[in-house]
Amino acid sequence: MTTLADLTTPALLVERALLDANLQAMADVLPGTRLRPHVKAFKTTALARRMAALGHTGFTCATVREVEGMAAAGLGQDLLLANEVLDCRRLGAVVAQGARVTVAVDSELTVAAAAAGGVREVVIDVNVGLPRCGVEPEQAGALADLARATGLVVRGVMGYEGHVMLVEDPADKARQVEECMARLLKASADVGGDLVSAGGTGTFDLNTWAGEIQAGSYCLMDTTYARAGAPFAQALTLLATVISANPAGWYVADLGLKALGMDHGNPSIAGAAVWYCADEHTVFSADGAQFEVGQRIRVAPAHVDPTVALHERMHLVDGDEVFESWDVDLRGW
Amino acid sequence: MTTLADLTTPALLVERALLDANLQAMADVLPGTRLRPHVKAFKTTALARRMAALGHTGFTCATVREVEGMAAAGLGQDLLLANEVLDCRRLGAVVAQGARVTVAVDSELTVAAAAAGGVREVVIDVNVGLPRCGVEPEQAGALADLARATGLVVRGVMGYEGHVMLVEDPADKARQVEECMARLLKASADVGGDLVSAGGTGTFDLNTWAGEIQAGSYCLMDTTYARAGAPFAQALTLLATVISANPAGWYVADLGLKALGMDHGNPSIAGAAVWYCADEHTVFSADGAQFEVGQRIRVAPAHVDPTVALHERMHLVDGDEVFESWDVDLRGW
Repeated sequence: MTTLADLTTPALLVERALLDANLQAMADVLPGTRLRPHVKAFKTTALARRMAALGHTGFTCATVREVEGMAAAGLGQDLLLANEVLDCRRLGAVVAQGARVTVAVDSELTVAAAAAGGVREVVIDVNVGLPRCGVEPEQAGALADLARATGLVVRGVMGYEGHVMLVEDPADKARQVEECMARLLKASADVGGDLVSAGGTGTFDLNTWAGEIQAGSYCLMDTTYARAGAPFAQALTLLATVISANPAGWYVADLGLKALGMDHGNPSIAGAAVWYCADEHTVFSADGAQFEVGQRIRVAPAHVDPTVALHERMHLVDGDEVFESWDVDLRGW
Repeated sequence: MTTLADLTTPALLVERALLDANLQAMADVLPGTRLRPHVKAFKTTALARRMAALGHTGFTCATVREVEGMAAAGLGQDLLLANEVLDCRRLGAVVAQGARVTVAVDSELTVAAAAAGGVREVVIDVNVGLPRCGVEPEQAGALADLARATGLVVRGVMGYEGHVMLVEDPADKARQVEECMARLLKASADVGGDLVSAGGTGTFDLNTWAGEIQAGSYCLMDTTYARAGAPFAQALTLLATVISANPAGWYVADLGLKALGMDHGNPSIAGAAVWYCADEHTVFSADGAQFEVGQRIRVAPAHVDPTVALHERMHLVDGDEVFESWDVDLRGW
C-alpha cells in the first residue's frame, strides 16, 4: 500500500470522498450533457474519465493540447475548444482521426483558420460582458453566415460570464447573469444551431438560460470559490513538509511560487497565518495549530487551475492511503 | 531553418545575443567560482552548461530534482542545495554516483537527515534577516559542532539576503547588505570552513563580503529586476499570438496564468497597456503600438523563475531564427 509518507513533497492530493461528492453534487444539478466539464481546471484525463462515466460525455477545452490529449484518451466524443485559434491544423488532425472537435470563432481570421485547418464545426463566441474574446451580439449572425459560406457547420453560440463568477451578493449575481445571457440569447437567435454554451462553477446553478454549463473548478475547488460560496468541498490540497522553524515564531514549508497559482493570492494552511510565498518556500506562523520541523501539512491553493498546471501528477487519497496517482497529462500547449 | 513562425504559442524565447552578453557581463564581475549560478531561475541544463564553459563550475540548486538533473547532465562537480531537506536519500544516491553534493542545514533534524541519507557535506544556513530558513548567527557554531560530531564535513555557511534584492536606494541597499553579511561573517567565524555563500542578482555587485554569489535571474532577467536597476538585458520573452480584437479597443493574446509567474504582477508588452491575465489569456490595449488578430507579439514576464517553471522548452533565437530548443529539464520535485 502506498501512503502519504511515500510521496515526495510538494504533492497534489485529491481526497477521493470529496471528489466523488463534488462530482455527484454537480451531476445531480446538471445531469448528462447539461454539463460540459471544463478540463482546463484539472488537466487530467483520468479525472475526465470519471466525469464521462457520470454521463458528461462532452467536454470543454482551452488549449489545442487539451483537445489532443482528450481525444488520445478516448474522450473525444464531443470536444469544444472554447478559445480562438489561428492555426487549426493540429485540431484538423484530431478530427481526421475520428474525434468530434468544435472550435470557437470570433473573427474572419479565426473562421478562415478553422476551415483551412480541417475543423468542420464551430461555435460563435459572443462577448457577454467580460472584456476578452467574443464578437458583440449584433455581429454574431453575420459571422455565422460567413462561417457557413466557408463550408463550416455552425453549432450555435458560447459566451463566458467570467466577470460574474465571484460576485458576492446572490441577487446581484443572478441579475448580472441574466443580463449576460440576454446578450447570448440575442446572438443565439441570429446564429441558430443547438448549442448555447456558457457558465462556470460560480454560476452553474444560476445560469438557467444556457443549454450547457462549462464548469470545471467544482471538482477540485480552491479557496477563492469557497469564499464565494460555491457549494463544493475543497478536494484538492498540497502535501508539504515543514523544513524549518525559527524561535521567533515562524515556520517554512517546502512549496512556493512553483507549486501554487498565485494570482488569487496566498494559499491557506489550517491553524496557521501565511506570511508569504517565495519560489520554493511558504513562510507562516501558527494561529491555533502546532507545527514542528519534519511535520507534513496540507496547503489549500487560492486558484486551482494554475496550481494544477504546475504539477506532473495528482494523487487520489483517503486518509493516509494513496489509491491512484494520475498524470496531469494535458499540460503545455 | 526553424523560424519563429514554426513555434506553437505561447513559447519561451531567449535572445542569444542578450543571453551571451548577460553571461559575459556577470563573468567579468564575478569570474569562475566567485559565482555559483542558481539553476532555480532557469531550470535548464543546456543553459547551465554555457555557464560552466565560462568557468562557473559550481552551481546552486533549490530542489532535489535540480541536483539530480544537474548531476545526470554531467554538471555535478560542486552542487550546493541551498535549501533544507528532511529526506536526503535521493541526494545520497547522487553522491554515491560520484557527484559532489552539499546540502544546507539549519536544525538537528536536517543534520540527521543529511547523515542518514548519505550526504557527506553540509553548509550551515544562517538567517541574515529574511524571515525564512536559517539558524540565528549565535546558534551556527553549535549546529556545526553537532554536524561534525555526526560525521559530516561542514564546508562553511550560507545566508540569503533576499529581502534586500529590490531595495531601490543604492546607499540603503549597500548598508543593508553589509548588515546582513555581518551576521553571516559572525556565523562563519564560529563555524569555520571555506564557504561563505550568499547574494543574488539584486546584490551581486554590492555583496563583497561573501566568497561566492548565488545569482541566477541575471541570465534571462525579468521586468522586476530591470525596474530595480539590475544591469542585465531582458533576454527572456514569451512569444504569443493575438487571437482576438474588440472594436471597443482591447486585444487578447493566447497566454495567461499558466504561462506566466504572476506573483510580481502583470507581464509587459511593448506599446501596450496590460489589463489583466486569465488562465489562457492576456487582455491589453494599444498604447503606442498597433495590433491585429494573427500578429505575433513578445511578452516580458514580471518574475522569471516561476515563469520558466511553467514551460517544457525554451528556444534560443536571433531575429526570426530559432537556433536551438532546450528542454526545461529541471522542473518538478
